[in-house]
Amino acid sequence: IPENYVQQAAQALSVRENKIRILLEQRRLPDEGWDETTIEVLLQQLSLMDSNNFPGNCGAGEREARISSELVARRHFRMGHGIGRSGDINEVQPKAAGSSLMSKLTNSLVLQVLREAGAPSTASAFVVPMATGMSLVLCLLTLRHRRKGAKYVIWPRIDQKSCFKCMLTAGFEPVIVQNKLYEDELRTDIEALEKSIEELKAENIVCVLTTTSCFAPRTPDRLEEVAKLCKQYNIPHLVNNAYGVQSSKCMHLIQEASKIGRLDAYVQSSDKNFMVPVGGSIIAGFDKNLIEEIGKTYPGRASAAPSVDMFITLLDLGKQGFQKLLQQRKHRFNHLKQELTKIAEKHGERLLDTRHNPISLGITLSSFHGLEGKSLTQIGSMLFTRCISGAR
Amino acid sequence: IPENYVQQAAQALSVRENKIRILLEQRRLPDEGWDETTIEVLLQQLSLMDSNNFPGNCGAGEREARISSELVARRHFRMGHGIGRSGDINEVQPKAAGSSLMSKLTNSLVLQVLREAGAPSTASAFVVPMATGMSLVLCLLTLRHRRKGAKYVIWPRIDQKSCFKCMLTAGFEPVIVQNKLYEDELRTDIEALEKSIEELKAENIVCVLTTTSCFAPRTPDRLEEVAKLCKQYNIPHLVNNAYGVQSSKCMHLIQEASKIGRLDAYVQSSDKNFMVPVGGSIIAGFDKNLIEEIGKTYPGRASAAPSVDMFITLLDLGKQGFQKLLQQRKHRFNHLKQELTKIAEKHGERLLDTRHNPISLGITLSSFHGLEGKSLTQIGSMLFTRCISGAR
Amino acid sequence: IPENYVQQAAQALSVRENKIRILLEQRRLPDEGWDETTIEVLLQQLSLMDSNNFPGNCGAGEREARISSELVARRHFRMGHGIGRSGDINEVQPKAAGSSLMSKLTNSLVLQVLREAGAPSTASAFVVPMATGMSLVLCLLTLRHRRKGAKYVIWPRIDQKSCFKCMLTAGFEPVIVQNKLYEDELRTDIEALEKSIEELKAENIVCVLTTTSCFAPRTPDRLEEVAKLCKQYNIPHLVNNAYGVQSSKCMHLIQEASKIGRLDAYVQSSDKNFMVPVGGSIIAGFDKNLIEEIGKTYPGRASAAPSVDMFITLLDLGKQGFQKLLQQRKHRFNHLKQELTKIAEKHGERLLDTRHNPISLGITLSSFHGLEGKSLTQIGSMLFTRCISGAR
Amino acid sequence: IPENYVQQAAQALSVRENKIRILLEQRRLPDEGWDETTIEVLLQQLSLMDSNNFPGNCGAGEREARISSELVARRHFRMGHGIGRSGDINEVQPKAAGSSLMSKLTNSLVLQVLREAGAPSTASAFVVPMATGMSLVLCLLTLRHRRKGAKYVIWPRIDQKSCFKCMLTAGFEPVIVQNKLYEDELRTDIEALEKSIEELKAENIVCVLTTTSCFAPRTPDRLEEVAKLCKQYNIPHLVNNAYGVQSSKCMHLIQEASKIGRLDAYVQSSDKNFMVPVGGSIIAGFDKNLIEEIGKTYPGRASAAPSVDMFITLLDLGKQGFQKLLQQRKHRFNHLKQELTKIAEKHGERLLDTRHNPISLGITLSSFHGLEGKSLTQIGSMLFTRCISGAR
Repeated sequence: IPENYVQQAAQALSVRENKIRILLEQRRLPDEGWDETTIEVLLQQLSLMDSNNFPGNCGAGEREARISSELVARRHFRMGHGIGRSGDINEVQPKAAGSSLMSKLTNSLVLQVLREAGAPSTASAFVVPMATGMSLVLCLLTLRHRRKGAKYVIWPRIDQKSCFKCMLTAGFEPVIVQNKLYEDELRTDIEALEKSIEELKAENIVCVLTTTSCFAPRTPDRLEEVAKLCKQYNIPHLVNNAYGVQSSKCMHLIQEASKIGRLDAYVQSSDKNFMVPVGGSIIAGFDKNLIEEIGKTYPGRASAAPSVDMFITLLDLGKQGFQKLLQQRKHRFNHLKQELTKIAEKHGERLLDTRHNPISLGITLSSFHGLEGKSLTQIGSMLFTRCISGAR
Repeated sequence: IPENYVQQAAQALSVRENKIRILLEQRRLPDEGWDETTIEVLLQQLSLMDSNNFPGNCGAGEREARISSELVARRHFRMGHGIGRSGDINEVQPKAAGSSLMSKLTNSLVLQVLREAGAPSTASAFVVPMATGMSLVLCLLTLRHRRKGAKYVIWPRIDQKSCFKCMLTAGFEPVIVQNKLYEDELRTDIEALEKSIEELKAENIVCVLTTTSCFAPRTPDRLEEVAKLCKQYNIPHLVNNAYGVQSSKCMHLIQEASKIGRLDAYVQSSDKNFMVPVGGSIIAGFDKNLIEEIGKTYPGRASAAPSVDMFITLLDLGKQGFQKLLQQRKHRFNHLKQELTKIAEKHGERLLDTRHNPISLGITLSSFHGLEGKSLTQIGSMLFTRCISGAR
Repeated sequence: IPENYVQQAAQALSVRENKIRILLEQRRLPDEGWDETTIEVLLQQLSLMDSNNFPGNCGAGEREARISSELVARRHFRMGHGIGRSGDINEVQPKAAGSSLMSKLTNSLVLQVLREAGAPSTASAFVVPMATGMSLVLCLLTLRHRRKGAKYVIWPRIDQKSCFKCMLTAGFEPVIVQNKLYEDELRTDIEALEKSIEELKAENIVCVLTTTSCFAPRTPDRLEEVAKLCKQYNIPHLVNNAYGVQSSKCMHLIQEASKIGRLDAYVQSSDKNFMVPVGGSIIAGFDKNLIEEIGKTYPGRASAAPSVDMFITLLDLGKQGFQKLLQQRKHRFNHLKQELTKIAEKHGERLLDTRHNPISLGITLSSFHGLEGKSLTQIGSMLFTRCISGAR
Repeated sequence: IPENYVQQAAQALSVRENKIRILLEQRRLPDEGWDETTIEVLLQQLSLMDSNNFPGNCGAGEREARISSELVARRHFRMGHGIGRSGDINEVQPKAAGSSLMSKLTNSLVLQVLREAGAPSTASAFVVPMATGMSLVLCLLTLRHRRKGAKYVIWPRIDQKSCFKCMLTAGFEPVIVQNKLYEDELRTDIEALEKSIEELKAENIVCVLTTTSCFAPRTPDRLEEVAKLCKQYNIPHLVNNAYGVQSSKCMHLIQEASKIGRLDAYVQSSDKNFMVPVGGSIIAGFDKNLIEEIGKTYPGRASAAPSVDMFITLLDLGKQGFQKLLQQRKHRFNHLKQELTKIAEKHGERLLDTRHNPISLGITLSSFHGLEGKSLTQIGSMLFTRCISGAR
């Protein structure tokens, strides 16, 4: 092969190697998304750094990451060790330098994304291979050690089962604060919340658990005011930000609340915000120590799959790709709003005015007034069979 | 294409379709392992049954399983909904009939495998997308609801960090029962255990947490005797069977204990027993209600990845393949024993006589007597750099 | 799994099955492109119809399509038999009903595409797993049997090595007809061509070999006038349509020539027109018998890879996708023309007026006048190192 | 990530990089087969060296290797340029340094394999992306240029359609030399062959085309004696070695014939000898110039797929893997012989004594004596429907 051809090819190779090198050095999301091949090359390199892929490796124990099925091995890029160690889900595994590096990198990228999405003061973040509900449990279990004897979680009501259940699973008693109707919107009743705190006594309260992303006519909780109270009464404040990263409003709420008052940690779904399969979430917060403590509360190693999915997706999107997604969402939300307004009018209904909810829209169903519950749920079913999913 | 060629081809196709039909009908592990294509065909069929893969689907909500990266989509066979619902990790998702079916099938196969591996009375089992440690936490959190006020977990000592940590994470107080030396072996001190129960009082005890698979010179706990005590004192009995499915002895211990006394649930790692990547475990037990309750304690949906890995691996192995793995392990263990005996003798050491431990072997290091800890750990490091991993 | 969920999923499955059924029945390109999963499902079904994938198959001969490497097997969807039989590249293989069906379908789709691209009278077409040059050789070798004793191929000059070589390889003597300069354009010299025919005598001429797609300032040959002569003198007319399917003008030339005069077969590259890897071409024509005879001239079986690539690509694009590509090309060509005009002016050069060439553009390099050849070729090299490839 | 972990991982990485480096330097088949990941890493590196995968590449011509379908791109490792240039199928493409390097490496490995399989004097070899029949055509077309005016190919009869057809396709007249029955075997009739030569005159003969691998009771041609005659009369000698690489006997015949007499080139199937999908063959010979000339006779670029398949398969097998395949074949052939002897006896038939055929076995069907042809072919059909393919 003539020298000059090879030189040009070598130059092309080095452009990719540079991308990888810069990622490893800076641990920052590239501006432009990577192509699939570069991502695969990096994953293969990382995979080869895990001991189960060492040439000549001879495992004789229970932690050897042997993979029986070729199909399974391939879909995990031959990484088998998962992430974390007994002591800490964020610790490095000696047997799995590649997987560990992948996990560390992913957490760095995720932290950057959260900061740029609207919460620049975020101090620490990591991907947990458990969905939002179970990750909230992990946060609550961590708080238990800091709040010996406390047993109540104050919770502005949101009609979402797993959110309620996570308090029960963690072994606490939810104290429900009903929302208040402001015209069309259901918003946090700050007075009732403060009353609850005073009645139960701060030292008996594990934390206040608020919610950002939710279905209209409920709106994101009034985080700033809640945070002020939490600071005043010295109570931890945990935020369920399930699908809030996609909305700059939700992220700003979190950022502002952390400035004005107290906001310890916020948890978001990886699938809902980053378009990966269900299975992971991101625990983030403004106090590095607390976030580390949560990581150390997780016993044993854990699945690397959600981290790998996030890693690939973030590199594939790049900063620009992710920002484009955010813009598209905003644009489409406005489009949906316009069109739903028209449809509502056409049928003698009206779109609810829920301006504090940047994610969800509600519509009156007054013409169905008088119908039994069953007939009402049939509307949802009719939408579903017409391939429109996501309506409530 | 001539008719007779097509007929023969159609017959070949129907053989595969029959395999799939029989699996769906009987929900039993096939005797012979399937080839990769048949497994992929089934996974694709299942994937197409999920609403995110419906033709014409138009998702407008937060649960639409849109997958951003093609690479991620492919490695998950385009399944994005995960498993479970808010209320129950084992519940069926209307939006994801295929993923749900996959999960149900996997749990059926896993139950069958556990029964055939030596615990035929097992009533129920399911794959959890969390490794053993976190799954033990889930079991403990479930028991909390049944044992209001109880706060102790009685635990025959085992030097494994995540096991100890799971009790702390669940918010309980571990009560350590030291093991007793019988010649070379460290075995459960049943008398000390009973003494603990009496001192703490049964009603204050969440459960006894025993361990089967462990490193020599410790041996599997004396499950039968512990189970008798648990029955007598009416205390739940939870077993950490981390890598015990591969050993018929460990499984028989569990089966016998459940007959003679009380054994509520046992938990095992999917990676250690079934050679899939780290990330899942199997919770099984003899009381269907308890196992269901544990499933219902998990809040929200969860990653399908560990179930898919198990599903593929079990179909790939078939009953015969899995049994062959078990036989190989036994055979190799004996081979290792023989060869280690020779090596030990050669160096003036001796293999410990730990006949109650069917999984692990110990060797004396008397010639290193007097060396500091650091020098001792260097032996492990020397093995590791020689590509022998798994030694302690 | 509840009945109604399964029903909806089954409906989704049936939509895909319908797509596949309709394709098999109608053998026509779907309007809308298929998603990757549906394509893969079909390929897997076809693959399972090949005898090497029959369950229980036991091959003992030299034609068993055993594939040694898993990686190779996967990339060919486990199809190993290739296409064709000893007697005919388009014949059905009893051992490979699936591969044969795939090949037949591909040829049907390709025929449809050629017709819709501008040559509706095309009677027959098939994919050959050889690039354009070697496929022209095959056509010439077929013509030899019809033109015993003839040894000349009349060929309006085009500066493309493999085109010239294909006549030599087939064992014929090329008779070059120089083009004529009409203002900026180099066009077929019809008079000179007719003179050649008369000099050599029709019975000594294997065929006239014309070219459509070519680099400016040459323009596509004047097919209609050549075809008239071929009809008049009763000489076969073969067209090298290498990258002409993408241009409706080239296709119309072919169609019109076949109406007005004689045009036996036209050959085009699969990679240049359909964006698949190099390796295949399509032989098409207006006389079904001749095209079949060409297929029968190919001795032995042949690679299925180019057919599979075409099959996937056409299903992926659908009719709409392919038409969109054609429109884009036209649009971009005009854009390039505009911008090159500006650049030429800026540098005191001028874009050649080559209106009969719908594919390629030329620019004067008068300011380089006086430079040696080597310095001129450096311009190409400079473009190449600036990542602009495709310039001549 | 701690330094020492990374060091060990880096060492593991370098073992693989060394494998790749050694391959590139020595261009020799590794003794031990490579694992899939190392092969994929190398293919990706090569692919990134092709200009269509250069970052920032902007193709504007007809040779840009743009690939429309992702599925197609992936299965070709994003290599789209094929191999060769207009002038020579073995020439390096400036736009495709990676593909070119892959092709060169494959040819080196293949040459080594042929030499070690029994023909150590082989001077040159290359993979052609056409099956054996069409590759023989290419050889014959090349010989035409060396044998102006010659039109006969002398051909000891073998009942295989594509073999006969390749002479016709190349435009020559086959002169069939009937075989002679020696007891059970049909062997080359050397006297009749010499008589043919004398009758036709050497200068009118393009070549003698012999065959090694064939079905019993025919045996491989008596290459040594034919080669002697070819030398004596100065006639090219071409060998159809379709599936003969797997038999050391066939390869030794070729080697010996080339020593004793004249043997110009031998052609073998890639699928039959190396277990890749149908589509390629290997042209090899003892005269480097002739082999190069054959490569130069191929007009235009060609599919890289058969080379890639061979490349992967040879690296996957390694020298040891390939030799093991050869031994297995021998072993299984003997086993088949034994068992067929028993079956023949059981049914009052007898295995033919065809000791000169190391590949194929024949059995008498005397009890079917008197049956029409149709009934006889039904035996084959019965075997086929019982999943035994490969019988004639």
